[in-house]
Amino acid sequence: MTSVATRFQGVIPPVVTPRTLEGSIDVPSLENVVKHLLDGGVDGLFVLGSSGEVSHMTNTERDLTLRTIAGVNAGAVPLFVGACEQTTARVIEEGKRVVSLGADALVVTSQYYAVSNAQENATHYRSIHAAIDVPIFAYDVPVRTHFKLPTDLLVELGKEGVLAGVKDSSGDDVSFRQLLLAAQDIPNFDIFTGHEVVVDGALLGGAQGVVPGLGNVDPRGYKNLYEAAMAGDWAKAAAEQNRLADVFEIVYTPQPGRLSGNAAGLGAFKTALMLMGVIKTNVMSAPMLALDEGETAAVKVILERTGLI
Amino acid sequence: MTSVATRFQGVIPPVVTPRTLEGSIDVPSLENVVKHLLDGGVDGLFVLGSSGEVSHMTNTERDLTLRTIAGVNAGAVPLFVGACEQTTARVIEEGKRVVSLGADALVVTSQYYAVSNAQENATHYRSIHAAIDVPIFAYDVPVRTHFKLPTDLLVELGKEGVLAGVKDSSGDDVSFRQLLLAAQDIPNFDIFTGHEVVVDGALLGGAQGVVPGLGNVDPRGYKNLYEAAMAGDWAKAAAEQNRLADVFEIVYTPQPGRLSGNAAGLGAFKTALMLMGVIKTNVMSAPMLALDEGETAAVKVILERTGLI
Amino acid sequence: MTSVATRFQGVIPPVVTPRTLEGSIDVPSLENVVKHLLDGGVDGLFVLGSSGEVSHMTNTERDLTLRTIAGVNAGAVPLFVGACEQTTARVIEEGKRVVSLGADALVVTSQYYAVSNAQENATHYRSIHAAIDVPIFAYDVPVRTHFKLPTDLLVELGKEGVLAGVKDSSGDDVSFRQLLLAAQDIPNFDIFTGHEVVVDGALLGGAQGVVPGLGNVDPRGYKNLYEAAMAGDWAKAAAEQNRLADVFEIVYTPQPGRLSGNAAGLGAFKTALMLMGVIKTNVMSAPMLALDEGETAAVKVILERTGLI
Amino acid sequence: MTSVATRFQGVIPPVVTPRTLEGSIDVPSLENVVKHLLDGGVDGLFVLGSSGEVSHMTNTERDLTLRTIAGVNAGAVPLFVGACEQTTARVIEEGKRVVSLGADALVVTSQYYAVSNAQENATHYRSIHAAIDVPIFAYDVPVRTHFKLPTDLLVELGKEGVLAGVKDSSGDDVSFRQLLLAAQDIPNFDIFTGHEVVVDGALLGGAQGVVPGLGNVDPRGYKNLYEAAMAGDWAKAAAEQNRLADVFEIVYTPQPGRLSGNAAGLGAFKTALMLMGVIKTNVMSAPMLALDEGETAAVKVILERTGLI
Repeated sequence: MTSVATRFQGVIPPVVTPRTLEGSIDVPSLENVVKHLLDGGVDGLFVLGSSGEVSHMTNTERDLTLRTIAGVNAGAVPLFVGACEQTTARVIEEGKRVVSLGADALVVTSQYYAVSNAQENATHYRSIHAAIDVPIFAYDVPVRTHFKLPTDLLVELGKEGVLAGVKDSSGDDVSFRQLLLAAQDIPNFDIFTGHEVVVDGALLGGAQGVVPGLGNVDPRGYKNLYEAAMAGDWAKAAAEQNRLADVFEIVYTPQPGRLSGNAAGLGAFKTALMLMGVIKTNVMSAPMLALDEGETAAVKVILERTGLI
Repeated sequence: MTSVATRFQGVIPPVVTPRTLEGSIDVPSLENVVKHLLDGGVDGLFVLGSSGEVSHMTNTERDLTLRTIAGVNAGAVPLFVGACEQTTARVIEEGKRVVSLGADALVVTSQYYAVSNAQENATHYRSIHAAIDVPIFAYDVPVRTHFKLPTDLLVELGKEGVLAGVKDSSGDDVSFRQLLLAAQDIPNFDIFTGHEVVVDGALLGGAQGVVPGLGNVDPRGYKNLYEAAMAGDWAKAAAEQNRLADVFEIVYTPQPGRLSGNAAGLGAFKTALMLMGVIKTNVMSAPMLALDEGETAAVKVILERTGLI
Repeated sequence: MTSVATRFQGVIPPVVTPRTLEGSIDVPSLENVVKHLLDGGVDGLFVLGSSGEVSHMTNTERDLTLRTIAGVNAGAVPLFVGACEQTTARVIEEGKRVVSLGADALVVTSQYYAVSNAQENATHYRSIHAAIDVPIFAYDVPVRTHFKLPTDLLVELGKEGVLAGVKDSSGDDVSFRQLLLAAQDIPNFDIFTGHEVVVDGALLGGAQGVVPGLGNVDPRGYKNLYEAAMAGDWAKAAAEQNRLADVFEIVYTPQPGRLSGNAAGLGAFKTALMLMGVIKTNVMSAPMLALDEGETAAVKVILERTGLI
Repeated sequence: MTSVATRFQGVIPPVVTPRTLEGSIDVPSLENVVKHLLDGGVDGLFVLGSSGEVSHMTNTERDLTLRTIAGVNAGAVPLFVGACEQTTARVIEEGKRVVSLGADALVVTSQYYAVSNAQENATHYRSIHAAIDVPIFAYDVPVRTHFKLPTDLLVELGKEGVLAGVKDSSGDDVSFRQLLLAAQDIPNFDIFTGHEVVVDGALLGGAQGVVPGLGNVDPRGYKNLYEAAMAGDWAKAAAEQNRLADVFEIVYTPQPGRLSGNAAGLGAFKTALMLMGVIKTNVMSAPMLALDEGETAAVKVILERTGLI
């Protein structure tokens, strides 16, 4: 429902990072993931995001991951790249490095570990924008940063041209809708939801796109959902969303309490990709554990039931 | 998208409770609110809810409020009545009393003040159901109870026939969608959203109805939204939702920090009804403060801009 | 270290409420608990507190409990009585009733369920003080109310004579110490800690007393700790505190996840009293579960090791 | 009250990091801070801690800070150095670097940004211990990491020799006491409190030392407190603690809401050191704001009242 031109839109999965049994980045598998996503019709790739286990990578691993993805992508779709650091000066260092390696846009959270406030985070984004000349998306993920970016601040930074948009993983659908409304007249300000199972409603409310971790597993499904929505066929969009919500049940296969929140969700995506033959292992970045045999079997049941294998 | 018969559905506003300047229940104004809502085409009334300031009423006041509403309603639409107490035995006492005064269904939160868990709340609902013979809706409102009712538990209690549905004010749209899917085959299990600005998406996902505090101010708007959705005209539903989200801005008129969360939101609804001539004052239950003159003027601007006065 | 006269001080356990196998209040056992506490040398009794399961009692049960305790106490020590209700008008009703039944002082939380703020809670306490002529203690228990009473507000209400003191169960030792310092010159303003295992430090910092749930099990131990502290024998106080902290391990005997926080802690106290022959059962108020056989055996081991049986 | 030998104990302030008006590290002022602390009789220095604004420093700045402090210290007291990174592999890189620059022990939080659990953090500490051969202290600071390190886990890692101790900034005095008791028989396991105003109680309970941010301002005061406690003169320790709690009021001088929690507390310490002539400016790491003129004047009043200037 945005009345102005947008640069970025559609389905932009956060690319998972396969590892070998020994724990290093599995480059061939990562290349396969990118091909799988591009074949699925995605409109962009979110690299070095939470779903890519960026927080668990050394800078050497981050560079390798980004280079690999950029190589396979070869300019096909825009690369949104996370600059995952705790405070402004460190984000700027990180951001410059990933831009030099091919980032088309940066995705940046509010500060974390530091106990900050709105004023400091406004300065944070303004300083990063002043230092680095690519579009910057705010990544609102309070479950990790423990700071909810206020709607007013996002709108203000959008109007200033500091922010090119928002990736919302806040879990707050009320503020998300209010952001969509408040930002609807800002040119080139694009709002994405990071939640897998409410994409139809987000698009109905005017979102430009979606960054679904589950999109690694079923990129075509999200593309179908997105295209139905853009065509105004909301019943079809909802039906596709319901199907994808069913696939999303894979993240609940781990035994209660065995895995962390990180490991359960991302591990299920990697396990699905392994079962689908896209990647070789479901190994997680240390110290996260992978889904075990029983959990893997439970994922398989869901993938078979939903027709993905 | 529910495939089974439902008993309850549509627009069911939580009725606000007007007070006189002296602070007692303003019965004539309350009668006017009910007429205003019935004229607006609502499908039910939620009596003694949080938006009705139930937590601030003595039992004498609760009884007067319920009797008054039941009198004007005269059986026109179903009365969903809150039994607002902290633990099981107290809810049962409260529930029996309000059923004797005309409740068609009870709305019951998880336990609060008590630090409980899922097992205790399962027993809680089963005990209430065993003791009182009307449909019981779980009211999931963790911002007040600090306990999120798990989806699994709600589904289990629905299948047992203990619960007739859920009023969801959890602010968690992901679990809401998962509840809709998991409960879709339970007969006579109706799920309502309590959030004002995401009703289109909730209905698209399969919700049976909405319990919007803002519905006190604009019941017809919500009815239009609901009817557009039922007719499959989702673009119209979204447009109406966006208009209502604009009206909802009245809750942000209070000066930052002056009023509690309770007083700001409910006070804005009462102030709007006062400006619309439905009720006489915007007095709140003690110790809550009412919106002041400047804040009232700000509400008026929004009502004028959105055509409500 | 308070420089002014105090009315209330020492060891004031929150009296547990025994129940029969059928679930009703076990009056003879309750009488035994009171005798056990008075024999242990306690300086007051906290009646209808969280540890007494007040939140789970009907008003009829609350009255019976208070009457029973007041009867056995027969004026021996002051009765601090909880008025456990969610908002001001309801607290005033509750408070008047318990005062008529023998309360020497009221213990009152901030509002709960209602989402309130400091200003509303200031009015809350002022209104209760204006309506009821006994000393009022603020009960700061954010784990239940989800509102931390600000130090400034407590000091202000103390200076006004609205509050006679504070029972602090906030778990925030920093603000507790700051409250002790800020309030040290207020006459007749008495500050108690509600935490079992840091009483020596609280008294060293200037607290007037302690309201330990574990004091039901070992009242004499807390009295010894208190007397050592008052005599300036801090090494002895710390040694006694360490011994009591060891006894407190009974609250960790329930299997992880089986019981709610309420049921585990209070259930362990009741189980210990049952094993000591003071009460007949360890039955909890519904819907809370009691400790089972294995958990009871684990409590017994600790009681034997610490010489309590 | 520990019965076994300890390697580390006493007063170990987290060294603040002065900046020039232009925002770079002010090396001469930093050297003065170290001299001021050593003159104050401190028993160790905590370098690159939260109070040192480590989260806001680039690695180049971290290295300069550590080198400078190590140079002035010249082996006088042990250097505990923070390895402030979000996950295991990154902490190991950071830890190796700071050890090469002179760290005698590492101080390491649980993982952050990542949503982890106890099992992952156990592996986290074990992996760091396996990779780096210096004593490792767990830094429990859930206000930043949003993960409370469980007492059981800390004790287990202590017994394994993975951890040499704990710096507790959890704000949970109950679990702190339980940790002291549970760990009292582990050789060379030293527990420090990070809270400025409850040090007397912590030492009474058996803590080996204190890491007070306020110790930058008044190291001698904390040393006096510690020595009184070690001599068993608890009344003197409490009196000194009360005096220091009064000095700590400087952290409440910033206008409500103007500064973040970080900037207010650390800014007050730096402002005090500036007023005392130890450092040249009270400039904070960007994007934090410094205390302004009025706030600085309020700090001055407190320093004068407490005899520090």
